[in-house]
Amino acid sequence: MNNFARRLTQVERHLEAQRLDAFIVTHLANIRYLCGFSGSSGVLAFSGGERRFFTDGRYTEQARTEVQGAPVRVSSLPPLVHAAQWIAGREKRSRSVSRTGIEAEHATLAMQTRFVSELQRTVPRSRFRIIQTTGAVEQFRIRKDAEEIKRIRKAADLASSIFPGVIRALDPRITENDLAAELEHLARRAGAEKMSFETIVAAGRHSALPHARPTRERVGRGFVVLDYGVILGGYCSDMTRTVYAGRADKKAREVYSAVLEAQLAGVSAVGPGVKAQDVDAAARKVLRKHKLDKYFTHSLGHGVGIEIHEAPRLAKGQTQRLEAGMVITIEPGVYIPGKGGVRIEDMVLVTDTGHEVLTPTPKELLLR
Amino acid sequence: MNNFARRLTQVERHLEAQRLDAFIVTHLANIRYLCGFSGSSGVLAFSGGERRFFTDGRYTEQARTEVQGAPVRVSSLPPLVHAAQWIAGREKRSRSVSRTGIEAEHATLAMQTRFVSELQRTVPRSRFRIIQTTGAVEQFRIRKDAEEIKRIRKAADLASSIFPGVIRALDPRITENDLAAELEHLARRAGAEKMSFETIVAAGRHSALPHARPTRERVGRGFVVLDYGVILGGYCSDMTRTVYAGRADKKAREVYSAVLEAQLAGVSAVGPGVKAQDVDAAARKVLRKHKLDKYFTHSLGHGVGIEIHEAPRLAKGQTQRLEAGMVITIEPGVYIPGKGGVRIEDMVLVTDTGHEVLTPTPKELLLR
Repeated sequence: MNNFARRLTQVERHLEAQRLDAFIVTHLANIRYLCGFSGSSGVLAFSGGERRFFTDGRYTEQARTEVQGAPVRVSSLPPLVHAAQWIAGREKRSRSVSRTGIEAEHATLAMQTRFVSELQRTVPRSRFRIIQTTGAVEQFRIRKDAEEIKRIRKAADLASSIFPGVIRALDPRITENDLAAELEHLARRAGAEKMSFETIVAAGRHSALPHARPTRERVGRGFVVLDYGVILGGYCSDMTRTVYAGRADKKAREVYSAVLEAQLAGVSAVGPGVKAQDVDAAARKVLRKHKLDKYFTHSLGHGVGIEIHEAPRLAKGQTQRLEAGMVITIEPGVYIPGKGGVRIEDMVLVTDTGHEVLTPTPKELLLR
Repeated sequence: MNNFARRLTQVERHLEAQRLDAFIVTHLANIRYLCGFSGSSGVLAFSGGERRFFTDGRYTEQARTEVQGAPVRVSSLPPLVHAAQWIAGREKRSRSVSRTGIEAEHATLAMQTRFVSELQRTVPRSRFRIIQTTGAVEQFRIRKDAEEIKRIRKAADLASSIFPGVIRALDPRITENDLAAELEHLARRAGAEKMSFETIVAAGRHSALPHARPTRERVGRGFVVLDYGVILGGYCSDMTRTVYAGRADKKAREVYSAVLEAQLAGVSAVGPGVKAQDVDAAARKVLRKHKLDKYFTHSLGHGVGIEIHEAPRLAKGQTQRLEAGMVITIEPGVYIPGKGGVRIEDMVLVTDTGHEVLTPTPKELLLR
């Protein structure tokens, strides 16, 4: 059985367990996971053991090439309306009240209204019920299969492979914006489909902003945070390295080595059965020891896959346990307002026995 | 009154006309339009003549710098929950049933559930009503104000300014992917914040696919469709030019000049009071004359602004009338399956007396 067939079957078993007669998937990342479609308009519908993928005329050829495990239906109707008609046609024969699932975290209020009004044209309102589902597909996406891990590994390798070129381009006179341009150019030339999020090049005092956008200011002297990722084969990578432009003084070196120590402690804590919050705590504890924990203002990490931010979240209060196959980031940071900041981030795979770091780039402090 | 103040007041008048006591804006493009915030997490809330902008700790500094016309509230609560608490606190004193608007086209089912359950903690369920709104903000965004037109002009100019560099890089031996990389690099170096959508470089038979993605194949000989846009000052540009790599035969020249004639006819038809469908028809009619209309498989154009696809749509059946201040694309195409295609696209501003083409790049067939 290929990956798509297996994933589709998993979802169908879940629908059965939830006593759902039908289900529409509207979230593009979930659609891609289940049937391979990578375009921007489509609905994957399930009904009584059958599936259909609905899209519009712009994607005729792409859908026929990409979609597996579900017959493709192209129409000038909006895919959601077309899906509703298909489900209605099947459900109208049923005598019981039919239950159709819709993705609560992704479907808009307008989508539900349109879907219901279309069903109603064929099936009396009393004969169907809309069930809002949460995580019906994401619960499976959280653990990556062998094919997904292979793709994530390639994406992480590609991103790492361009890092030396980025460092060569890093000159105190280059602007943050131009360095980001250089980085993205290297990524594209290396075969990246696109960047997985807006590249961060944050130099000097800007490095103290976790979500800094590249500016037209020159890099100058001080820390330079480089946080970027690529998409390859539909899967995201995510990594951060912080280098120092110029001669780092003792204080700067201390901050860097504290963050690195925290990052390594976070990575070491990763393993199957460990609670997400405990990994966060392991890294935070190291920064506390160095009296820097108050400058670590975000959570330790997040899952990565088809989307750049997926479950699980590694943060305080997250009691979810890690499982083999999860791919997460470990990215502690220290941000001293008005001065500068350091963040170090790897992607880490949870294995049966512990973990494997997927980001091959070294983490010693680089001076430029 | 500055632009944000004026826009906020317009929305408040609309709320009054709709008898809405409160309103939450969750769509980021609408938030940016109304108060200037450009981050990725926030809710703008209205209640009885007051406004608040809610965001989380990652955006403290950015929100304080960017947001105008609404006091900023930062919290560790999700912005939506924080907004619900603020509205609940104000509405609980009211004696009548309060009506709160929520954006039906953007808010998910889960967001509505969370919002209602938070309101309910303070206000009895019988005392408030959720009203699903459509286009409450978009109805104003459709006509651009002077500041917006200035920004769109700059974005269009920037995109056009890099076109000669793209043409210099266009060699039959370069791959589509590398040419896209080169194009994006030029855009970044010229100051683009990012691309406004995935750059299309479609050569040879790929040019027959309206939504082609750049491949690792060489450009070779034949038509090369270059469809790209940048974001500058938060506003999108969108343009397409088709060039010919090699010596174009008579048939290729004929197809090109038919598309150009259709494009010019579409542009000429643009003016205030004209129905969107009539502009589409004007371009389509030219292609019919050349017996190429069956190869024009998409609509003629769309609005552009903070988002790359906005209202109005220029397509069959669209009876909406154009108004001064609208910015639209005019982009007819001819796609001959298995052979190749041509698309030519400008951005056009609807003026009081007619129209103005915002894309300065020439449209004669370029041979490389």
